[in-house]
Amino acid sequence: MKQVLSIFEANNVIWQSVFLRHQKTQNHMNRFQELCETHAPTLAAARNAIATREFYARWAEAPSGKIYGETANADGEVTFNNQRGNQFTRLVQQGDAWHGEEESPYGISMGITYPVSSAANLMSRAETAQKQWSALTADDRAAVLIECLERAAKDFFEIGYATQHTTGQGFVMAFQASGPHSFDRALESVATGHAALTQFATEQTWVKPMGKISVTVQKRFHAVPKGVNVTIGCSTFPIWNSVPGMFASLMTGAATVAKVHPKVVYPLAILVASMQHTLQSLGLDPHIVQLGVPSPEHPLTMELIANPRTGTVDYTGSPSFGAEVERVCMQHGKVCFTEKAGVNTVAVESVENLDAVLDNLAFSILLYSGQMCTAPQNFFIPESGITTPDGTVSPDEFASRLAAKIDALAANEKMAQTFGAIQNPSTLERITSAAGQGATVIRPSAALAQPGFENARSVTPLLLKAAATQRDIYEREWFGPIAFVIPVGDFTQAITLMAESVRSHGALTTSVYSTNPDMQDYAERELIAAGAPVAFNFTGSIWINQSAAFSDFHGTGANPAGNASFADLNFVAARYNVIGTRRIG
Amino acid sequence: MKQVLSIFEANNVIWQSVFLRHQKTQNHMNRFQELCETHAPTLAAARNAIATREFYARWAEAPSGKIYGETANADGEVTFNNQRGNQFTRLVQQGDAWHGEEESPYGISMGITYPVSSAANLMSRAETAQKQWSALTADDRAAVLIECLERAAKDFFEIGYATQHTTGQGFVMAFQASGPHSFDRALESVATGHAALTQFATEQTWVKPMGKISVTVQKRFHAVPKGVNVTIGCSTFPIWNSVPGMFASLMTGAATVAKVHPKVVYPLAILVASMQHTLQSLGLDPHIVQLGVPSPEHPLTMELIANPRTGTVDYTGSPSFGAEVERVCMQHGKVCFTEKAGVNTVAVESVENLDAVLDNLAFSILLYSGQMCTAPQNFFIPESGITTPDGTVSPDEFASRLAAKIDALAANEKMAQTFGAIQNPSTLERITSAAGQGATVIRPSAALAQPGFENARSVTPLLLKAAATQRDIYEREWFGPIAFVIPVGDFTQAITLMAESVRSHGALTTSVYSTNPDMQDYAERELIAAGAPVAFNFTGSIWINQSAAFSDFHGTGANPAGNASFADLNFVAARYNVIGTRRIG
Repeated sequence: MKQVLSIFEANNVIWQSVFLRHQKTQNHMNRFQELCETHAPTLAAARNAIATREFYARWAEAPSGKIYGETANADGEVTFNNQRGNQFTRLVQQGDAWHGEEESPYGISMGITYPVSSAANLMSRAETAQKQWSALTADDRAAVLIECLERAAKDFFEIGYATQHTTGQGFVMAFQASGPHSFDRALESVATGHAALTQFATEQTWVKPMGKISVTVQKRFHAVPKGVNVTIGCSTFPIWNSVPGMFASLMTGAATVAKVHPKVVYPLAILVASMQHTLQSLGLDPHIVQLGVPSPEHPLTMELIANPRTGTVDYTGSPSFGAEVERVCMQHGKVCFTEKAGVNTVAVESVENLDAVLDNLAFSILLYSGQMCTAPQNFFIPESGITTPDGTVSPDEFASRLAAKIDALAANEKMAQTFGAIQNPSTLERITSAAGQGATVIRPSAALAQPGFENARSVTPLLLKAAATQRDIYEREWFGPIAFVIPVGDFTQAITLMAESVRSHGALTTSVYSTNPDMQDYAERELIAAGAPVAFNFTGSIWINQSAAFSDFHGTGANPAGNASFADLNFVAARYNVIGTRRIG
Repeated sequence: MKQVLSIFEANNVIWQSVFLRHQKTQNHMNRFQELCETHAPTLAAARNAIATREFYARWAEAPSGKIYGETANADGEVTFNNQRGNQFTRLVQQGDAWHGEEESPYGISMGITYPVSSAANLMSRAETAQKQWSALTADDRAAVLIECLERAAKDFFEIGYATQHTTGQGFVMAFQASGPHSFDRALESVATGHAALTQFATEQTWVKPMGKISVTVQKRFHAVPKGVNVTIGCSTFPIWNSVPGMFASLMTGAATVAKVHPKVVYPLAILVASMQHTLQSLGLDPHIVQLGVPSPEHPLTMELIANPRTGTVDYTGSPSFGAEVERVCMQHGKVCFTEKAGVNTVAVESVENLDAVLDNLAFSILLYSGQMCTAPQNFFIPESGITTPDGTVSPDEFASRLAAKIDALAANEKMAQTFGAIQNPSTLERITSAAGQGATVIRPSAALAQPGFENARSVTPLLLKAAATQRDIYEREWFGPIAFVIPVGDFTQAITLMAESVRSHGALTTSVYSTNPDMQDYAERELIAAGAPVAFNFTGSIWINQSAAFSDFHGTGANPAGNASFADLNFVAARYNVIGTRRIG
């Protein structure tokens, strides 16, 4: 605890220096001074949180009228409904054509079109904007970016509806994931980037004593972005997965082009449009951040990556396309951060309260119908049974009790929005395919009603039982509401299979239930050596699917699921170079 | 200045926390506590220096008896002479055979053999050692590494003679470059790695308020090295160029295998042997650091890189082999840091004292006969002449006066050791080749006597004049004592040619002489945009060839000369991942 306290103190000193520097320079012209002072407490709080890894949230996660204004929800819904069927005209950037192909997984009509630009136009504007942006100080950029987030937070409810009707997430989850949780991740990247940039002085008078004389050199150190950032977004978490790379790049001086998934444009369009207006109102080039809207003629991704102005690429999406993105980045010498996907595993060895465990696991499986890179898929259960205070529970009993928990939740109409809708029709085909692979169906997937949305694409999870030897079936990512119960010889075999799975197929999460400290230590050692994070004994209101901004590193970067970690030092430090000048006299 | 002071204060707080933590835990068993306390002031001073970029040196650069002991020089020379003609038996690591092929550029016999191990044996031992090493805290590793350096510093004089008679450097330079300057760079990597690792807390109790209840999660964060480090050394700066990567890797928890150049083994062998004995005396596995000695049968480099246990690779050497190293690293998914080579350029536009400038430039050209990646090669001079207080000086006059300065220094017997000897016979062939390319010879290269060494391979620099259009001749790295004076239209053309050269061929240094602040600003903007550092108006006892540990970043990572920078945050942060565990209750 001493260390944590001291890191806090140290950061306070750093922050005070930042703040004082601005006070000292008030005789100089600094048009962002007031903004720096306004947002200094937020920056300091965020920097303290990343250093201590304590709980911190800048934006409340409850979509509550008491917090966001009594009319905020209704206003957001009106704006959302007015936008449907119309051109999205809020972006400052100009397009060459209009295109849109979004469909709501809840079955309502969307019909929104967006301005489409060529990769060349996007990158040319980004390069111009970046010259202005990279010349600002780290403090100024942090203040401007926090101002962008504060203003865009007024759009949380519209962002929630836009996310619900593109990704299929239930409204509350959509609000949280694309609103406060995303904005906290963006602020985390700002704080981490600011920490990296302010690690070393930007100028110094260097005096080397040489006996009776001394040599004096005036030094300056310029942090120069490696190039324009291209962030390739995904269809399930269009803001949450894109803002870490965008804001890490922006904070370290780069302009960014956020290329969206063709079916999920609206949520990020709201954020980018708001940011462009904020930048413009502050006298900055709005093209510091741009939206890249793909069309069937111009899928954009590879053209953007190969552009000579591009320096860094952030990618979230499928492993197969991700591998191609990595290959093209290597070929063109671009720094590439990826979050692809993995196979998330669970071992249950001994528990204090199996019901509480099953409640937690059932929720983790059905939350947004398993369309999360962090959702658990494979549950390894010792054949000798799970040790509980009421005796051992066999793998079959575990499976049937887990199925019963899912049944109960599926029968509760209030839970429908937790299941959400299926973003991509191919996920439904995947459920059918999974059921036909040779594993035993414990609980079939079935249609689920979404009150208010007759045509919603919504289903309950498929629960299967596979033999430990059927690795060709379960050691694949079955993205969606698909889970396997797998009886194994013992806990050691479970951990061995999990570690091998992490090494071969990657993982964003692993989860272990054991009341035995020795077994916990063993699991921690083996799984960390394999490159996966581990969660022990999650019950109650915390789920393996969730990672907390400012505290949990999302993605380890140490296994095939991807090389990015939101947001470790490397996630920001690899985006720029420090170039020095030296002057005599 | 305020910022710098505050960073210092902040670092003091961080350091005090580190120190206090150790005091607090004295009831726990911590076998390195005393070492941590002993070296805490050194670590704090180094961390302050990297933060402020102020002058700092842990080890005095003068090979003085007053500093290092009156018998240190003689003792070192005796040890060196006793080692010649014998097996190097000081390493703890065992070999499968003995091999050595070193030759002194000063013509004395060497005849030292070293234990040779297969890549598989080296990597297997490294993996075992790394398990123990990576489990230590960052503070413990820093303390152990500083202890290793302090003990090895007792070998500075033998290291100096070993470096002189493998690289060809004059003794004083060899002492400084492989001794204090190298050790400062090693300590810089320790400080930078320690700063990165202590940036975030290693554990925290995370409490999320959720209305009337709260959720508590116990978190731990493990910094896990990406794998064993392989450092590929070069023949001209065998310690200076190898220790940054080795110590950055060691500090961040990796074991390292330092693969040396077959002709330059001895200097690093002394350091590695000393470190192995220190590690062993502290109860640690000596194979945390190993020497990789190549033989004609086993050149080692590619085998080491391709080994599955390898996580990171540091390379210093030729661009052609460097490109192959990069390709193999990509293919096998290894993080790769390179320092290849570039073409270093100079523009002279206006000066206050041309004699002082010429003195400085002549010294920069002849220092270790241009066998430095930082040595200037191409001098761009405006055709209208250099503006001086005594009128303009034409390119031809500049060239002849520069040649005269070199002549004067070559005639001074005391300067012979500044020229040093030629490490590789192919450099002599390169001098002949350069003279025959079509550029005008201003000053031919000639043999230079090295007092005391009749058979020394030592020469004076070749000075050529090329037309600006002869880019195919001068836009190549002519490694060795070869320089070109190139008349250009004006200063703007000089800067344009320099920026293009940086972008196409890379550079470790650029140098600009101008008394005009606007022209300085123009040059700074253009050259930094091209990715090169810039030195302005160097005269007196500071030379473009030298970069100072703790203050100057060596290599920008932003141009084709290499992607490594000694030692920015990325140089340490890319070597490990942070993997978290979470526990309920």
